[in-house]
Amino acid sequence: MQTQQTPLINPFGVELDLEKGLMRGAKNHLVRRASDMRGYYADAAALQRLIGEENDPVHYEVFEVPVPENYGHLMYCISTLRPGLVGQEYFMTKGHYHSIPNTAEIYLCLRGEGYMVMKTAEGKFATERMTRGRMVYVPPFWAHRSVNTGTSEPLVSFCAYPAEAGHNYGDIAVQGFPKRLFAKNGECVVA
Amino acid sequence: MQTQQTPLINPFGVELDLEKGLMRGAKNHLVRRASDMRGYYADAAALQRLIGEENDPVHYEVFEVPVPENYGHLMYCISTLRPGLVGQEYFMTKGHYHSIPNTAEIYLCLRGEGYMVMKTAEGKFATERMTRGRMVYVPPFWAHRSVNTGTSEPLVSFCAYPAEAGHNYGDIAVQGFPKRLFAKNGECVVA
Repeated sequence: MQTQQTPLINPFGVELDLEKGLMRGAKNHLVRRASDMRGYYADAAALQRLIGEENDPVHYEVFEVPVPENYGHLMYCISTLRPGLVGQEYFMTKGHYHSIPNTAEIYLCLRGEGYMVMKTAEGKFATERMTRGRMVYVPPFWAHRSVNTGTSEPLVSFCAYPAEAGHNYGDIAVQGFPKRLFAKNGECVVA
Repeated sequence: MQTQQTPLINPFGVELDLEKGLMRGAKNHLVRRASDMRGYYADAAALQRLIGEENDPVHYEVFEVPVPENYGHLMYCISTLRPGLVGQEYFMTKGHYHSIPNTAEIYLCLRGEGYMVMKTAEGKFATERMTRGRMVYVPPFWAHRSVNTGTSEPLVSFCAYPAEAGHNYGDIAVQGFPKRLFAKNGECVVA
């Protein structure tokens, strides 16, 4: 198991705000705005209106304090996905595979409501409900995207994955996921 | 990275109670009572009194829904450590190394207060404060034990670690950790 390649580091602690969905002193702070999401939503004109007329709103933020990207270490983050719609489609993350495809990811939902939307490169598709206290297991090989189906609350999750996993956007920017989540007459519709 | 050895499974979700510190439908439910902790506390007579005169109280519980113990999968649990004293020593877990020593573990504290107490086989020692919203990173190679220093609240943590890591009690049952946590005049003393 490549013992010699796992750096020995000292223990540490990180302060999270489990309600606001942020990490104090994070070294990496990813912010995705509407303008970063071009090509991901069904209604490109609605996205363009958000960018131009509503001040390019933030879709999601991810906070990390990185560790060595070697076997045996674990990366972790807290992510906050804002509520909102692009046309009728709920705000969502881009979604990703892992660069090392056979690595899992765990999401512990701390606030809000939504879905984890998942697929495999071979065409399998699945969704799992996210709500406070629900942990979603994204198995190895499954690409995953979170979607906020709430009307006012952020979707806050704590996540963990093998530190060597990496991110791979693969076919997602081009093909997306097999289904999208829309708000129709106040209901969430998977279509 | 042993792709062929990582089983492909379907996504799933698990319901946790983040306040009570339990997992609904857990397949593994570990309960450690005072009588399971013989040899771990400094004051063996005080532990024996707890067992005999106070109905052998529960020290901690761990809930899991297992996944395949292969590279790329992640094991996770919610653990609840009760408040209490054995003589002057705070209730604690046994502590463990991982059988694959170069694997980390993440603890996200959800309720209560205490410490993660850690050591390496080479004699390094560290503690990290645990309190709601604080995440403690237990790096690869570090044995770890949690200690509840509160007076009334359980110490509730969500944890994640590589699924192949395994548990190794190693030298802990015989040598313990270099220091213990005691309540003296209402203060936590590391000695």
